[in-house]
Amino acid sequence: MCTAATYKTKDFYMGRTLDYEFSYGDEVTVTPRNYPINFRFMGVRNNHFAMIGMAHVADDYPLYYEAFNEKGLGMAGLNFVDNAAYSEPDLRGLNGESNIENVAVFEFIPWILSQCATVDEAKERLQFINLTNTQFNEMFPCANLHWIIADKESCITVESMSDGLHIYDNPVGVLTNNPPFNIQMFNLNNYMGLSAKQPESNFSDRLDFNRYSRGMGALGLPGDLSSQSRFVKVAFTKMNSVSGDDEKSSVSQFFHILGSVDQQRGCCQLDDDKYEITIYTCCCNTTKGIYYYTSYDNHQICAVDMHKENLDGDKLVRYPLITDGEIRAVN
Amino acid sequence: MCTAATYKTKDFYMGRTLDYEFSYGDEVTVTPRNYPINFRFMGVRNNHFAMIGMAHVADDYPLYYEAFNEKGLGMAGLNFVDNAAYSEPDLRGLNGESNIENVAVFEFIPWILSQCATVDEAKERLQFINLTNTQFNEMFPCANLHWIIADKESCITVESMSDGLHIYDNPVGVLTNNPPFNIQMFNLNNYMGLSAKQPESNFSDRLDFNRYSRGMGALGLPGDLSSQSRFVKVAFTKMNSVSGDDEKSSVSQFFHILGSVDQQRGCCQLDDDKYEITIYTCCCNTTKGIYYYTSYDNHQICAVDMHKENLDGDKLVRYPLITDGEIRAVN
Amino acid sequence: MCTAATYKTKDFYMGRTLDYEFSYGDEVTVTPRNYPINFRFMGVRNNHFAMIGMAHVADDYPLYYEAFNEKGLGMAGLNFVDNAAYSEPDLRGLNGESNIENVAVFEFIPWILSQCATVDEAKERLQFINLTNTQFNEMFPCANLHWIIADKESCITVESMSDGLHIYDNPVGVLTNNPPFNIQMFNLNNYMGLSAKQPESNFSDRLDFNRYSRGMGALGLPGDLSSQSRFVKVAFTKMNSVSGDDEKSSVSQFFHILGSVDQQRGCCQLDDDKYEITIYTCCCNTTKGIYYYTSYDNHQICAVDMHKENLDGDKLVRYPLITDGEIRAVN
Amino acid sequence: MCTAATYKTKDFYMGRTLDYEFSYGDEVTVTPRNYPINFRFMGVRNNHFAMIGMAHVADDYPLYYEAFNEKGLGMAGLNFVDNAAYSEPDLRGLNGESNIENVAVFEFIPWILSQCATVDEAKERLQFINLTNTQFNEMFPCANLHWIIADKESCITVESMSDGLHIYDNPVGVLTNNPPFNIQMFNLNNYMGLSAKQPESNFSDRLDFNRYSRGMGALGLPGDLSSQSRFVKVAFTKMNSVSGDDEKSSVSQFFHILGSVDQQRGCCQLDDDKYEITIYTCCCNTTKGIYYYTSYDNHQICAVDMHKENLDGDKLVRYPLITDGEIRAVN
Repeated sequence: MCTAATYKTKDFYMGRTLDYEFSYGDEVTVTPRNYPINFRFMGVRNNHFAMIGMAHVADDYPLYYEAFNEKGLGMAGLNFVDNAAYSEPDLRGLNGESNIENVAVFEFIPWILSQCATVDEAKERLQFINLTNTQFNEMFPCANLHWIIADKESCITVESMSDGLHIYDNPVGVLTNNPPFNIQMFNLNNYMGLSAKQPESNFSDRLDFNRYSRGMGALGLPGDLSSQSRFVKVAFTKMNSVSGDDEKSSVSQFFHILGSVDQQRGCCQLDDDKYEITIYTCCCNTTKGIYYYTSYDNHQICAVDMHKENLDGDKLVRYPLITDGEIRAVN
Repeated sequence: MCTAATYKTKDFYMGRTLDYEFSYGDEVTVTPRNYPINFRFMGVRNNHFAMIGMAHVADDYPLYYEAFNEKGLGMAGLNFVDNAAYSEPDLRGLNGESNIENVAVFEFIPWILSQCATVDEAKERLQFINLTNTQFNEMFPCANLHWIIADKESCITVESMSDGLHIYDNPVGVLTNNPPFNIQMFNLNNYMGLSAKQPESNFSDRLDFNRYSRGMGALGLPGDLSSQSRFVKVAFTKMNSVSGDDEKSSVSQFFHILGSVDQQRGCCQLDDDKYEITIYTCCCNTTKGIYYYTSYDNHQICAVDMHKENLDGDKLVRYPLITDGEIRAVN
Repeated sequence: MCTAATYKTKDFYMGRTLDYEFSYGDEVTVTPRNYPINFRFMGVRNNHFAMIGMAHVADDYPLYYEAFNEKGLGMAGLNFVDNAAYSEPDLRGLNGESNIENVAVFEFIPWILSQCATVDEAKERLQFINLTNTQFNEMFPCANLHWIIADKESCITVESMSDGLHIYDNPVGVLTNNPPFNIQMFNLNNYMGLSAKQPESNFSDRLDFNRYSRGMGALGLPGDLSSQSRFVKVAFTKMNSVSGDDEKSSVSQFFHILGSVDQQRGCCQLDDDKYEITIYTCCCNTTKGIYYYTSYDNHQICAVDMHKENLDGDKLVRYPLITDGEIRAVN
Repeated sequence: MCTAATYKTKDFYMGRTLDYEFSYGDEVTVTPRNYPINFRFMGVRNNHFAMIGMAHVADDYPLYYEAFNEKGLGMAGLNFVDNAAYSEPDLRGLNGESNIENVAVFEFIPWILSQCATVDEAKERLQFINLTNTQFNEMFPCANLHWIIADKESCITVESMSDGLHIYDNPVGVLTNNPPFNIQMFNLNNYMGLSAKQPESNFSDRLDFNRYSRGMGALGLPGDLSSQSRFVKVAFTKMNSVSGDDEKSSVSQFFHILGSVDQQRGCCQLDDDKYEITIYTCCCNTTKGIYYYTSYDNHQICAVDMHKENLDGDKLVRYPLITDGEIRAVN
């Protein structure tokens, strides 16, 4: 389905893969500060933080899969099928009888990123939120999602389930899909003994063991594409990552981290004989506002720099996903 | 350490990762038809098939890690530490008393690729070979290697061990490192039930199971970087791969296949606190003689086309590995 | 720690292992119908269902680890460290201002088994319960437990946690220890593809696989002694069990089921260099009221038949655990 | 199929499970010193070491599954389907032209145990052996077997394959079935990091892990019934075993060791809907000549003491396997 991760060197990086069997038509979309954001229940916001991310744009509205604002706060929505549950709009909030803020699920990312500069501010905002099951239009049913929100200091996961809204600290800075985040974190305990170093001879001190390969300390790390296995694999890769702290090294390493859970066409077959693949992988330097991405057949890293756009504008700036890779001819 | 794979669509593709903690200085090297190849025990070969591949060039001699000749035969050497064993030169062969062909380990790839157009021809040649422990020079001890040799019809693995030379049919078309190939293939039996499709409820028909994620049919697939685990992972990825059969799709898919066993810096820590990483990944269209590659920090696919060079020349043509990635600026 | 299971043939069987590093002094204890049970907050119950089970008897009070009543209802408490949470006594219940029933944790088994004939009746009772953190005496801190309650028709798990009392249907009829039951059941999904039959060739239809051993369909079944692994292993063994439905066959099979998660001395080492072992394994034919058990060094099945005692008595009947095995000399 | 193990405390113990879907009719059989053993190619041996073990007796001949002689040497044959290969009788040996000793496979155990007091003596004998494919009679095809031979000092495995006779030192003192022993030992390397103690936090020092259960250090230990998994499981159990060194404690612990790979009816289903189960488990104190066993439905340990028989006799002494368990009534 999808995998998100954060990574910190000199700057802070956050990104995700989007894994699916087809694309809705995706564009790297910059929402400048003066693009009027119409919220279904919360009025219009005419001036706000600028943001950049991948979106399906419908009726000039950016339906973001993930985005990052100019203050360095990032947020990504990942599939959470069978677990996500949203509410009806709360009338007290609508009538001004309470401070409940009704926010349609498809508005959640712009709602937070347009006004919150940090995770702490987002947590503050989340105290009042009522995520509603309001559809964008008749064609687009509500996506079943949960979210990762991060800045350079901290990271949280937000899950709206039938028993209410859960906000978890996310110390590992990764998110995939099912099961709910607390179970994912619990499951990680089963892998605590795995190591990037060679294993000790714990089995018995009366047998001679042969470290016949490098990398045997992580034997037991899962390599299938299910969401729980991807959580463990990417967590291990990210927590053990080593790279230079300059931009090129950091970005390159980030794509290696998410590459560890790349979904290859053919390895995840759906019931209708379609295949889920990693449609795109992105990495945003949230400090500098540069959005990097690759797509399944475009292995070269592409970059869209939000600060090269007029962030004081009032129109969306859209760059369609480059799906066709340029090969660099050496001779 | 390393992983090699083959892939067939309309054309035939073969490639490998080279995983190590440092680089010797690698160059994509074309050996044209009239470059005189001096063999230590077998004389000079002045006219031969042209070949392309990654090599460390020393004293104008191409020490190939892997190469592919103009007839479509490819060959790659992969680490085989503690198992590889080579012989002293056989005097009867040297004296012409037998048809034994003494070939130094570092000459093995040019020896085969300079004269064999197919795997069958290579097998013929291997009947006479005596792989010798002759060093290239005092500085370069013999690498401990085993080899994969493939054309579009078939694939074999060659292992020179203390009990002699083993030549195995390689039906899966992949090779990693230890253990020996027959044990790798045997181990694959333990994964025969894994599937790219969702699993059946075999555990019990009296319990309801929840396929809570896509991709659960391959639960149990290993994801660590040890050589046996990489063999299983890349075999599963390759055998289940689905792609278009045009050049761009095939090449892109190939890099996804080998990407499934990418070694990320930090995840395989050596005793001296160095890290093994995937220094480069290559994919050769052996039908067309185009050598594609990426390197750890250069995610864009680069291409060297042997047919753009003068293959009737007598000088090596060398292109240093591009290690610095160009990012494509979209705005 | 411990494992409990149910098994149904002609009669209904339920039992458990008790795994620990030492024994408190355990006795198979029959509580006859007229033994006065003093509840701390709920008065004395002078006439009640008779029950049998393993208990540590203190001050003539049976601190049951598990018990089974004459109506065929069984209940076992298993360690639930770090998750179990009990309440203070509820004053409204004490004052008769509500129908809350305050029951000390150590009284929970007699509370239910003394008055409930079925799981349905137990569920009815559980609506009113407030499990209190009241200690039996100063020496015995409250055990951190969760419970399995079963009759021949159904089975539930009861967990008192910091967020309240959870009552789960238990379709698999097994219980071990951590994590909470809902996570245990979720985790079982990861094993749904395992089979008592040989595996299909799902990995690839272009490779020949060798079913080199019987029993390969369950490759991936865990064999360590952690509580989550024991849950999976015993669930698989129980759900796939096949036996005759007579008493001897059923009882023998039941001991094989729990034998699958036997804890051997040495394999689970604690921090203080003690070892957790399976101190005893029991199996009660709840239909007939016969309590069978073995102990670590007594492999022969021993039987205590509650109906051989005067069930109308008012005194506990106690048979110390036989820990020393009799070997049957054939010659 | 089967599992064999050795165990040493004050005395030396050796035993095995016999796992199969039916029984041929098995008897604990003592072969006294003067029972004439007729070898097909090697004449009659009238005086020899006495031995005890489980056998199917046909035409007054003990077809031993395993046996132990009065000198403390033990030997067990375990299924080795598709790998075992035996030879035709060697004529030079028959004609006295060489010192080759032709021994039919069904004679192998009495051949060794009748004359060898130690593993070293057995190794000496094995230098001359030619294991022949001679059938006992038309009804009994040659069993496909490999063997474990052990005394209190050392242990070896003997495998007759198409490429000849292999004799391996067996440092772990266990044997199951396929694959060949060298691959089983190699596979054990993959489990070297597993521990009877709790795991360290090797995954990351920046995450807090919860050792939520005892016994988590061995997570990854296999629990299915395939022969390679049983090898790992019983090796771990045996190598970590802790017990008293007296007879009762040692024997009890031994049955726990082999109990770790007990095959429960239902968990290993064959193609014809039969089930493989552990028909019997035995443990011989080879020092004292006492043969202990349990059977699937007889959980009590039974004992046959060879020294209670007239070991100078010339007739087989036979005790049919007790398959019906006696339950010890406590009240």
